Amino acid sequence: MKIGIFGTGMVGVTIGTKLVQLGHETKMGSRTADNAKAVEWANANGGKASHGTFADTAAFGEILFNCTTGMKSIDALKLADEKNMSGKILVDIANPLDFSKGMPPSLSVCNTDSLGEQIQRTFPSVKVVKTLNSVNCKVMVNPSLVHGDHDMFICGNNSAAKEMVTGILKDWFGWKSVIDLGGITGARAMEMLLPIWLKLMETFNTANFNLKIIR
Amino acid sequence: MKIGIFGTGMVGVTIGTKLVQLGHETKMGSRTADNAKAVEWANANGGKASHGTFADTAAFGEILFNCTTGMKSIDALKLADEKNMSGKILVDIANPLDFSKGMPPSLSVCNTDSLGEQIQRTFPSVKVVKTLNSVNCKVMVNPSLVHGDHDMFICGNNSAAKEMVTGILKDWFGWKSVIDLGGITGARAMEMLLPIWLKLMETFNTANFNLKIIR
Repeated sequence: MKIGIFGTGMVGVTIGTKLVQLGHETKMGSRTADNAKAVEWANANGGKASHGTFADTAAFGEILFNCTTGMKSIDALKLADEKNMSGKILVDIANPLDFSKGMPPSLSVCNTDSLGEQIQRTFPSVKVVKTLNSVNCKVMVNPSLVHGDHDMFICGNNSAAKEMVTGILKDWFGWKSVIDLGGITGARAMEMLLPIWLKLMETFNTANFNLKIIR
Repeated sequence: MKIGIFGTGMVGVTIGTKLVQLGHETKMGSRTADNAKAVEWANANGGKASHGTFADTAAFGEILFNCTTGMKSIDALKLADEKNMSGKILVDIANPLDFSKGMPPSLSVCNTDSLGEQIQRTFPSVKVVKTLNSVNCKVMVNPSLVHGDHDMFICGNNSAAKEMVTGILKDWFGWKSVIDLGGITGARAMEMLLPIWLKLMETFNTANFNLKIIR
């Protein structure tokens, strides 16, 4: 499958590398065509890995992953251009973390809105699916780093898109349990998990943990 | 032990009833001395149960539980009067849920502040310990309603107060795992769990669930 990754940070590199390992042609997109980190990633990952602008990447991918930093996601996706993404699935992994006031970061949007909803409203023809934002990027593509059963959440307005992404989570990344929280408004709940995630990372001194819902 | 419960709603009734069953003299406080729900509760729970104003209750209790509705907690605690609570532990169970804009409720404070912090700032001589806010009230006093291991969070600025409350959670209510998130700023993370709690209640159609941190 042809996949586009927006963002050249740790999340983009981790997801992109995993997708290439799985045999998918993967393009990493950034603001400029010759971003040093994207070039380095593509060179390190062989013939199936390529790089380009956000717009190149949007046009290339059959499925798209938003791995940009949350506060810049809307601007990045505007550069990607909705006409290149129309009808496609956009897996939104970003968190709207605001580091401008120091640590710990706050959320630049929450409570009555979310980044996932903002993206869906701004690009209505794109099938936005929010998932993976509540775990460390290494755990995203290797859930067995966390020992024992644990859950991933997913939400979005398009059921077929969620089904497809659930398949990716399970069959490609190895997730065993994916809980569907309904429409894209579920992104509020999922993004508001970041404060407890940050506190738990501090408490346990590891990023290799996740939540399990016990009933 | 003498215990004061602020609030006559489901949470106050559930916690108060459990404390009386455990043999503690428990007073339920409200805005007026003759609140119908507090009178009914006291009559139903025998000689160890009593009722009074917020101030009566604050003066009575050696340990205090804030079970008022979150958006009215500060006002209620002002009526309780800091001089009656000085040096005492206040277990803050409340969530700042704002139902004024319909369902689902939003939080009236979050992200860069929390109700727990507001209470601690407003009443600096009180030892505020935030806990139990992230589960249904029946689960608060009977964690075995959730089948399997699961975790309760706690935070607050006073270590001895947290140790005392952790003992109450474990020895009185039956909690097996209590995770200390540090100072009272942890209340942000704990109160921001409400949106995922509400989504999960909707998804699973039960309030008898909780989170377990898997590592």
